Amino acid sequence: MRFSRALIPTVKEAPADAANASHVLLTRAGFIRRVGAGMYDFLPLGLRVLNKVEAIVREEMDRSGALEVLMPALLPAEYFKETGRYDVYGPTIFRVKDRKGADLHLGPTHEEIVTDIARREIRSWRDLPKTLYQIQVKFRDEPRPRGGLLRCREFIMKDAYSFDVDEAAAAKSYEVMRLAYRRIFDRMALTYRMVAADPGAIGGSTSAEFQVLVDSGEDAIVACPKCDYAANVEAAKVLPVEVADEPLAAKERVHTPGHGSIEEITKFLGVTPQRMLKSLLYVAGSEVVMVVVRVDHDVNEILLARALGVDEVFLAGEADVKKATGADVGFAGPVGFKGKLLVDRTAAGVKNGVTGANETDYHLKNVTRGRDFEGDVVDVRLAATGDTCPNCRDGKLASYKGIEAGHIFILGTKYSGAMGATYLDEAQQKKTIVMGCYGIGVSRLVATAIEQHHDEDGMRWPMPLAPYHVHMVTIGKEEAVFAAAQKLYDDLWAAGVEVLWDDRDERPGSKFKDADLIGLPLRITVGAKALANGSVELKPRTERDPKKAELVPLADAVAVVKTKLSS
Amino acid sequence: MRFSRALIPTVKEAPADAANASHVLLTRAGFIRRVGAGMYDFLPLGLRVLNKVEAIVREEMDRSGALEVLMPALLPAEYFKETGRYDVYGPTIFRVKDRKGADLHLGPTHEEIVTDIARREIRSWRDLPKTLYQIQVKFRDEPRPRGGLLRCREFIMKDAYSFDVDEAAAAKSYEVMRLAYRRIFDRMALTYRMVAADPGAIGGSTSAEFQVLVDSGEDAIVACPKCDYAANVEAAKVLPVEVADEPLAAKERVHTPGHGSIEEITKFLGVTPQRMLKSLLYVAGSEVVMVVVRVDHDVNEILLARALGVDEVFLAGEADVKKATGADVGFAGPVGFKGKLLVDRTAAGVKNGVTGANETDYHLKNVTRGRDFEGDVVDVRLAATGDTCPNCRDGKLASYKGIEAGHIFILGTKYSGAMGATYLDEAQQKKTIVMGCYGIGVSRLVATAIEQHHDEDGMRWPMPLAPYHVHMVTIGKEEAVFAAAQKLYDDLWAAGVEVLWDDRDERPGSKFKDADLIGLPLRITVGAKALANGSVELKPRTERDPKKAELVPLADAVAVVKTKLSS
Repeated sequence: MRFSRALIPTVKEAPADAANASHVLLTRAGFIRRVGAGMYDFLPLGLRVLNKVEAIVREEMDRSGALEVLMPALLPAEYFKETGRYDVYGPTIFRVKDRKGADLHLGPTHEEIVTDIARREIRSWRDLPKTLYQIQVKFRDEPRPRGGLLRCREFIMKDAYSFDVDEAAAAKSYEVMRLAYRRIFDRMALTYRMVAADPGAIGGSTSAEFQVLVDSGEDAIVACPKCDYAANVEAAKVLPVEVADEPLAAKERVHTPGHGSIEEITKFLGVTPQRMLKSLLYVAGSEVVMVVVRVDHDVNEILLARALGVDEVFLAGEADVKKATGADVGFAGPVGFKGKLLVDRTAAGVKNGVTGANETDYHLKNVTRGRDFEGDVVDVRLAATGDTCPNCRDGKLASYKGIEAGHIFILGTKYSGAMGATYLDEAQQKKTIVMGCYGIGVSRLVATAIEQHHDEDGMRWPMPLAPYHVHMVTIGKEEAVFAAAQKLYDDLWAAGVEVLWDDRDERPGSKFKDADLIGLPLRITVGAKALANGSVELKPRTERDPKKAELVPLADAVAVVKTKLSS
Repeated sequence: MRFSRALIPTVKEAPADAANASHVLLTRAGFIRRVGAGMYDFLPLGLRVLNKVEAIVREEMDRSGALEVLMPALLPAEYFKETGRYDVYGPTIFRVKDRKGADLHLGPTHEEIVTDIARREIRSWRDLPKTLYQIQVKFRDEPRPRGGLLRCREFIMKDAYSFDVDEAAAAKSYEVMRLAYRRIFDRMALTYRMVAADPGAIGGSTSAEFQVLVDSGEDAIVACPKCDYAANVEAAKVLPVEVADEPLAAKERVHTPGHGSIEEITKFLGVTPQRMLKSLLYVAGSEVVMVVVRVDHDVNEILLARALGVDEVFLAGEADVKKATGADVGFAGPVGFKGKLLVDRTAAGVKNGVTGANETDYHLKNVTRGRDFEGDVVDVRLAATGDTCPNCRDGKLASYKGIEAGHIFILGTKYSGAMGATYLDEAQQKKTIVMGCYGIGVSRLVATAIEQHHDEDGMRWPMPLAPYHVHMVTIGKEEAVFAAAQKLYDDLWAAGVEVLWDDRDERPGSKFKDADLIGLPLRITVGAKALANGSVELKPRTERDPKKAELVPLADAVAVVKTKLSS
């Protein structure tokens, strides 16, 4: 592609609302343009990357034996009504009435539609297993679309769905997909972790997320350096922290005026964080519940909700805290608390701890569960850096940030049961199909790759995802330069190398800046000076020192590039 | 692909609402499934055809220099409001409110969005010409979705949009697209006509439709056998039919009780249709207008509306006819008519014609314009079979039915003017960009190809669009048969031949029926008997006599198939 004929509108300014590197760079390099909140045009370079992601995903799905289908994006409401998700999705679903007044909606995901295919077309155990997949546009009315392509209202997903005779067979289909996902992320040359996404499961046997590791990620991950255990922090198993036994001291009421924050209290009282307990109040259904955790730990709200048998919990507001404890926020504690009380297993082991006194401006020292308060002991804390690995029980967990790029899990009979997707087994008995579900955020991966691969000058595309492999820059207007460039351009394309040729009448500095911004893996500069010696200049995008550009004989250029492409 | 692992749910029953061959066959052969009115799943075979159509379209767009982009399907209303189409589209547009109450809608087409790209990214005459295209899903709430993939509410279009400095440059971009369209339809091996779609234009210089010729088509086309003139009948130029002069006879009032229909009157009075005039009443705005045409001609309502300076005309109802003529329907005539009167140029030349008398049960004989009535002479009839070609003025037009598969036209400044898409010319003057627009109904083409290529047993895919090239059927369960089939299957794929292998444990008759239904171009049968002689059986789908299947040495099979593929 010649730059002068392309549509690559690079700009200097980042969008005002862009907080992520990928959002800034995709816009500045002319890969995408904003059409509305969470809605983007893919300009030619952006679309080329999207297509490369799609192609890798499609090849690995096909290789795994999955069958591609295409389902409508606009759906009659009846399918989601069958499973109750028409209501569950609430305002996240885009709803439409057609000219006859019928309820339609945009598909946020397609479990119901693919289950409808299965219940109509799968009759017998002979028809199983089957895995169907789709790569297509989906829609969710996100409350806060952000990060450019990271969280859109319209986005492209690959979703695969497996259908099996039973759980054991479903586990096999899941394993086939797990391996396909490994190949997909390996091929994209991204640094990622497959992490447990289901509390209680080690190694993601029924659910796993593929997290691309980047500092800007919204997901917290813990991973063991000694074994292959990795988990979303919300899903990580936690072991109780062992504490040394010590004699119990007498409980003491301490005046702590104006020291409502945990940092201040810790400092004021001169105790270690391991001795400090925080008492958080949560609204669970119609109840206000107190949860006690060590101050250096955080509450895992998913585990908490599960422990309480509710769908969701919310941190209580100021009024609820005052009502439940009789004190201002910052002075809650378990001693004398009248409501439901849960104590995290590690907090429960703390001897001579510090808690709020349920009295404004007062704390209690030397508080110990069993003597001073009771409450149910539960595992409700998030895993933290330094925790002992729950898998090998040897390594200490390290923390990472990640962007969820894929998620695989066994659905069981949730949808097939609700929608009557059954088959006849060998004994002619009707059985419910067991399903699995496997997603990849295709458009999100375009941005995710940049989050992981960029520097202050621009993007740094891994070869498999780069919109073109080579950015060829011609310097000057000499006919010989253009003739040599034209031949090299043709030879490279003929050799299967995708070349973007900056043939514009711009200053070299401006061309190099755009080359760095667009971030193709290899830059070739064709200029009169080097050409006089029969050479062109080759520089990998990862090499930031311009002096380290390599001179390559023009005659060898194609061969050298081909080598670098496959390395 | 092995049939046993595929998802090809062939069925005997056609859908109850299916009137078109493609709708029946796509469903019966398991290519598509209905999800809702005008909404379909593409099952694997259907999607393979769709992808082949897309690939041909994409290759020819890329070859023509057009740049691919991807725009959102869900759009903020502001863009269509800028051009007024948010209102013009009325109930055909699917409207959505987001969680904040903002107006969104699904894109029925994307002129406004691509014009928005142009107005932001095109600055200078140096940036022009540019042609952008998209292949993506579009949505229209059709009042009557029908014909399976022929008229859907969700469908896939390729739309290209050209941007030029002026009309002359736009004409060049249009010509590039016209040639690309020719290549696209030629490559798909469809019989089509490029027809004028704009009344007054000969040869489609500013607007042309690509009509695939099929008897089930909804569009009427006239074409000249002596030159390359072809036009949508609504857009065809008409020449007045010359009539021999003859002496005017005396006007006569004839009692025609119970003979309200034109056929009856013609028979009853014993006159030729060339002498019969019909007088039709139309509502145009607030006015009721009479239009006189020869009885063997039809009124072109587009030309009529244009002649009257209104957007649309509607045939008047019974009450309006009675009020305007004083007579029952069937007895209207121009003589003595008090309202606005238009006379088609050919009707105006008729001597001694027959018309209604504006009196129930009476007609008038020997009526001639100029003596018995006046009215404005206009060209408002549709072209008809046998008309003299308006281009070469030699051939007699023949009539065809077609399905519109593509439409190209020069838009001028309709959108760029309304949305302020301008550029600076060489003299630094601001000018409005001139646009063109080029559509292809990608998903509609899947059905259109079948409408043109099928017989009573099933589909008959042209090679370039076939989901697979070869349908290999194994007969019996002998290990030798399977081993030979497996080797042939592998060898064919290795040679670039796409093979569907029916490896199912079904009766041969049932397998052959499915092969005919699915309609791949070549069928190879591997059975013990022929194999004993080192042969397999090869039969093109177009050959209906099973005895004419050809025996081919197994060793030559790949070479023979390759030859047939490229022929």
